[in-house]
Amino acid sequence: MGTLDLGPLLQDNGSKIILFVWDGVGGLTSGPNGETELQAAKTPNADRLVAANVCGRLEPVYPGVTPGSGPGHLGLFGYDPLEYRIGRGALEAVGVGFDLEPKDVAARLNLCTLDDEGRITDRRAGRIPNAEAKPVVEKLAAAIREVDGVEVLWSPVKEHRALMVLRGEGLGDGVEDTDPQRTGVAPLEPQVIEETASNRRTAEVAGKVLRQAREVLRGEAKARGVLARGFAKRPHWPTMAERFGVKAAVVAGTPMYRGVAKLVGMEALPATNDMEKDVASVAANWDAYDFFFLHYKHTDMAGEDGDFGAKVKAIEEADGALPALERLGPDVLIVTADHSTPSAMKAHSWHPVPVLLAAKTSRRDAAERFDEIACIGGELGLRPSIHLMPLALAHAGRLAKFGA
Amino acid sequence: MGTLDLGPLLQDNGSKIILFVWDGVGGLTSGPNGETELQAAKTPNADRLVAANVCGRLEPVYPGVTPGSGPGHLGLFGYDPLEYRIGRGALEAVGVGFDLEPKDVAARLNLCTLDDEGRITDRRAGRIPNAEAKPVVEKLAAAIREVDGVEVLWSPVKEHRALMVLRGEGLGDGVEDTDPQRTGVAPLEPQVIEETASNRRTAEVAGKVLRQAREVLRGEAKARGVLARGFAKRPHWPTMAERFGVKAAVVAGTPMYRGVAKLVGMEALPATNDMEKDVASVAANWDAYDFFFLHYKHTDMAGEDGDFGAKVKAIEEADGALPALERLGPDVLIVTADHSTPSAMKAHSWHPVPVLLAAKTSRRDAAERFDEIACIGGELGLRPSIHLMPLALAHAGRLAKFGA
Repeated sequence: MGTLDLGPLLQDNGSKIILFVWDGVGGLTSGPNGETELQAAKTPNADRLVAANVCGRLEPVYPGVTPGSGPGHLGLFGYDPLEYRIGRGALEAVGVGFDLEPKDVAARLNLCTLDDEGRITDRRAGRIPNAEAKPVVEKLAAAIREVDGVEVLWSPVKEHRALMVLRGEGLGDGVEDTDPQRTGVAPLEPQVIEETASNRRTAEVAGKVLRQAREVLRGEAKARGVLARGFAKRPHWPTMAERFGVKAAVVAGTPMYRGVAKLVGMEALPATNDMEKDVASVAANWDAYDFFFLHYKHTDMAGEDGDFGAKVKAIEEADGALPALERLGPDVLIVTADHSTPSAMKAHSWHPVPVLLAAKTSRRDAAERFDEIACIGGELGLRPSIHLMPLALAHAGRLAKFGA
Repeated sequence: MGTLDLGPLLQDNGSKIILFVWDGVGGLTSGPNGETELQAAKTPNADRLVAANVCGRLEPVYPGVTPGSGPGHLGLFGYDPLEYRIGRGALEAVGVGFDLEPKDVAARLNLCTLDDEGRITDRRAGRIPNAEAKPVVEKLAAAIREVDGVEVLWSPVKEHRALMVLRGEGLGDGVEDTDPQRTGVAPLEPQVIEETASNRRTAEVAGKVLRQAREVLRGEAKARGVLARGFAKRPHWPTMAERFGVKAAVVAGTPMYRGVAKLVGMEALPATNDMEKDVASVAANWDAYDFFFLHYKHTDMAGEDGDFGAKVKAIEEADGALPALERLGPDVLIVTADHSTPSAMKAHSWHPVPVLLAAKTSRRDAAERFDEIACIGGELGLRPSIHLMPLALAHAGRLAKFGA
C-alpha cells in the first residue's frame, strides 16, 4: 500500500479530536503475577471506553525499531518518522525548548578534555555532572556572544552535552562534525559538506567560535574544549492544518514534546506536567482548536526508572483524567503511547503500544480492557502509528469518499 | 514492504476462483442487540465455510479512507487504487455503462443556470431532478451530434450530472475544467493543460460544443448551460490475464461494477441483479473462464437506505447462493466486500470488511462465524485488499515458489 495525500479528501465539520498520550505506557509481562504495568493498574475509565468502542495496537516507527521521543510522537501525528527527520542540532534545540528561528543553525556540543597540545584526551570531559557543566556553558555564553556579525547562543543540555545556536543571515547547515570520534588527535576544523557561500560562512564562524571556546576554557580542569555535531536548521514541514485540516494545540509540560508538536504547527497551551491542571488547560481552550495533543509524562519516567509500582500508579493517575476529558464532548478520544518503556527494561522499546479510540462510528470489538494483550483482539488491529491520524479523521467525519 | 510482480511466478493449472462480492456488507455494532447486520443475519452457509476454512479482514484503500465503488473493487482485483486512478470523465462513463473507445475523451458535465449575461447563478441548475434533466440532455444530444469532424455523444447521469463523450481521431485529455467553482462569473473556456496538438483539438472542439449548448438551452428555466469537468480517456491498464494469468469474467447487474471489471480486462457475462439468475450465469459459463467476479448489490443498497433489517435480509439472500456456487467445484471460493456500508451511517465507510476464503489449502482458524468481529481472529489477519489476489492465486495453486 502506497501513501495517500489526504488533502483532497479533507472536510472541516467542526469536530474535535483529543490525542491523550500516556508516554511509554507499553510494558512487558514482568509483574509479580506475570502481568504488564497496564494489566496491573486499575483503569476503570479506559476499560469502560474500550468495552464501548475499539482498540488495537500501534507500531511506532518500524518493526523492531525503538523510537526516540521525536519519532515516536511524529508517527502519532501522522508524520512518517522515516521521512520526517530532524537534524541532531535542531533536535537538541527542541529538547531544551529553544525556539529556533528560520535563519538559525544549531549544533550539539560535547564538552571535551584537551591536553596541552590541544589533543583530545576525553571526548565527554569525564561525563562532567550538570552542576559542573552549567557554569562552563555560562562562561562560554558570557564570553562569546557574537562572531563576524553572527550572534552565538548557548545552552547547557545534560552533563557534557550542550547546544550552540548561530543566529545570522546567510548561514547554511551543510557543515561536517568537528568530533573526530577518537582521542589523541585535535578536534577537526569545521568543513563544508557542499561548497556554497552559506555553508562556507557557517564553517568559518563555527571555526572561530570553537577556537575562541578553547581560549575561554583554557583554565578548566575537565572541560577544556568543545566538539560540534549535527549542524542543522529547524526543519520546515507542512503543518497539521495544511496536511490534515485541523487547528492543533499541544498541552505538554516537558519541552521536548512541546517542541516536536510545534514542528508540525501545533500551538503550545499552558502545561505543567500536573495532570489536573493540564486537563484544565485543554478545557480552557476547548473552543479554539480542533485537535488536542495532551501529553502525560510520568508513565515513561517510571518505566525509565525501572519502577513497576510507580508506573502502575502513574497509569492510574492518567486513567483518572479521562472522565474530565469525556465531559468536554470530543468526537474522537484516543489514548495511546509514543512507544513502550517497560520498567523491566528501564528504557524505551520497540514493542507495539495499545491504542483505544472512542467515537460514535466505532465498530465495537470483543476487548473489554485497555492493556497490551486485550488489545491484540481489537478491531483496529496491529498497524503502523502513522495510520492513526487518518483513522482519527475518519471517525471525526473529516474525510470525504475516495473516488466514486 | 515493497510490491512484487507476480508474473514470473504464475503457472496455469486450470484451477478456478470465484470472488463473490457482497457489496458494502460491513456494518457497525448498531443493531437492536448491539450487533452488526452480518451478526444479526442467519448465514449458515458462510458460517460453515468459515468454520472449515479461513477468514480475516481487508482494508479496501487506505486506513480511514472511505472507498468509492471503483477503488473498492480495484483493490479486490489486485489493482492498488492509489496507483490505478480513473479520470472523472472516464469514471462517469463507466458508471453509466458507456463503453469508451480508445480514441474517446469523456467529461463529466453539470447542468447549470446562467443569467442573461451568461454568468453562472447556480452551478447545479437547482439540483434539477432526473425527470427534468433527462429531456434537457436529450435535447443537447439531438442538436449537437458533430463538431469539426468529432462525434459528440451525450448521456444523462443523475440529477444535474451528465456525461459528454468526444469521439474522433487526435483528441487529447489534457484540458482544464470549465467550471470556475463559483457563481457570478461566466463558465471558463476550455484551456489546454499542456500545449499539444491533441489537447488543443479537444479544447477547441469542447469550446464550440459548450457554446452551442448555451444556444440550444437558451429557452430553459434552470438548465441554461453546461460546465465540464475531468476530461479523461479510458485508462489502459494491464489486464488480469496479463498480471495474474487468469481468464476473468464479471457477472454484475449494475453498470458501474461491470465497467470497472472491464477496465481490468474481464469479459461481461449476462447479469440481472437477480441472485439466482446471476449464479446461473456463472454456471453457464463455468468452463470458459478461470476467475469469476460475481457481484451482489442489495446489501449496499439497504445500507445506503439505512435499513438494518433490509440489509440483514439481503445478506441472507446472498448466503443462500453459496451452495450453488460450491456445487460448481471452485478451487477457491471467496466472499468479501468492496467496502463497508453500515446502515447506521447510510453511506460507504472506511471500516475493514470481513473476508472468507475456502480452499483445500486452508489453515483452519478458530473463527466459526462470518462477521466483522469473528473475523478479527481469522488466519488471514487484517490486510490491504490488494493482498487478496496473491492469496487467491496461491490457494488456487497458481503461484510457483519464489527463489530456490
